[in-house]
Amino acid sequence: MRWKVKVIVRLKEGLNDPEGRVIQKALRNLGFNVENLRVPKYFEFELESEKPEEEAEEMCRKLLANPLIHEWEYSVEPVS
Amino acid sequence: MRWKVKVIVRLKEGLNDPEGRVIQKALRNLGFNVENLRVPKYFEFELESEKPEEEAEEMCRKLLANPLIHEWEYSVEPVS
Repeated sequence: MRWKVKVIVRLKEGLNDPEGRVIQKALRNLGFNVENLRVPKYFEFELESEKPEEEAEEMCRKLLANPLIHEWEYSVEPVS
Repeated sequence: MRWKVKVIVRLKEGLNDPEGRVIQKALRNLGFNVENLRVPKYFEFELESEKPEEEAEEMCRKLLANPLIHEWEYSVEPVS
């Protein structure tokens, strides 16, 4: 069966996000009152699988994220 | 009022996503049956504003995206 999978990989709480800091500063310089800006990694793909959640979890552990510094979430829905 | 804003910036349909291609290939080499993998930019932040949708749109046009090559979506919800 075919699935649409979306994965968000965030740095763990407390870890520095230098890209986020730079973008936040630029937005504030433009006059936007922005705080706590983060730039997680985000992946979208289609997956042919009989156990999509299990495989998404495995992809995160093996390749998309680094379990030492990241946490992740994913959503899985059938492709119509 | 304070808002949690999430912004996704995607390359327009048909434009090459080389990072996505590399990651897809790596996942397929690991045995996952993945297709159409894309790596959009993703931003999360808090925004103090009276017109958060309008400001999110403006941020995309001015800084977070390039209207020539990107399309974007955002969600806005009150911070409890």
